[in-house]
Amino acid sequence: MSSAFKAIAAEPRRRILNHLAGGPMTVGEIAAKFEIATPSISKHLSVLKEAGLVHEQKRGQFVIYSIAADNLTNALYGFLSPFCPQARKIAVQRKRTRKGK
Amino acid sequence: MSSAFKAIAAEPRRRILNHLAGGPMTVGEIAAKFEIATPSISKHLSVLKEAGLVHEQKRGQFVIYSIAADNLTNALYGFLSPFCPQARKIAVQRKRTRKGK
Repeated sequence: MSSAFKAIAAEPRRRILNHLAGGPMTVGEIAAKFEIATPSISKHLSVLKEAGLVHEQKRGQFVIYSIAADNLTNALYGFLSPFCPQARKIAVQRKRTRKGK
Repeated sequence: MSSAFKAIAAEPRRRILNHLAGGPMTVGEIAAKFEIATPSISKHLSVLKEAGLVHEQKRGQFVIYSIAADNLTNALYGFLSPFCPQARKIAVQRKRTRKGK
């Protein structure tokens, strides 16, 4: 969970996640949205992957990245729970859903 | 908002916020919960204050720290909105409440 917070500390990584919220993308497609070189985007994607916030999938010659939204939301609702009754409620609901799976 | 994410990237700062969720505390009271020297706690509190996540108030010879829960939750719900319909709903509600104030 700690690595999730480190991963979202960098603004470009939050923006990458924001783009991926719209659907899976290749590195090239993500890089086209930024004024940052593709190798830098790849590094940011590695950090997000290590933190469990994105999934990587090979499709032919391309690598497709998609957001691991559950890991992201679980980490943040868990953190928000002591400060916000609404987050606490959502965190409990999500825990129940996970147990029910 | 960016500084809020940097502030919560460090585990000790997330723990400080967690303690402050229980109510305002002095540096000494916070330090007593940690195996970290008081000057380090003070530095973490400065970062949290700079990021707008804690309030500082002098009371006699003591400085009391309290959590700026609204700033914390607004930043995180705003970030979560693209990934989670529940967060989007809460973010909209909170924006309305702020406008109504």
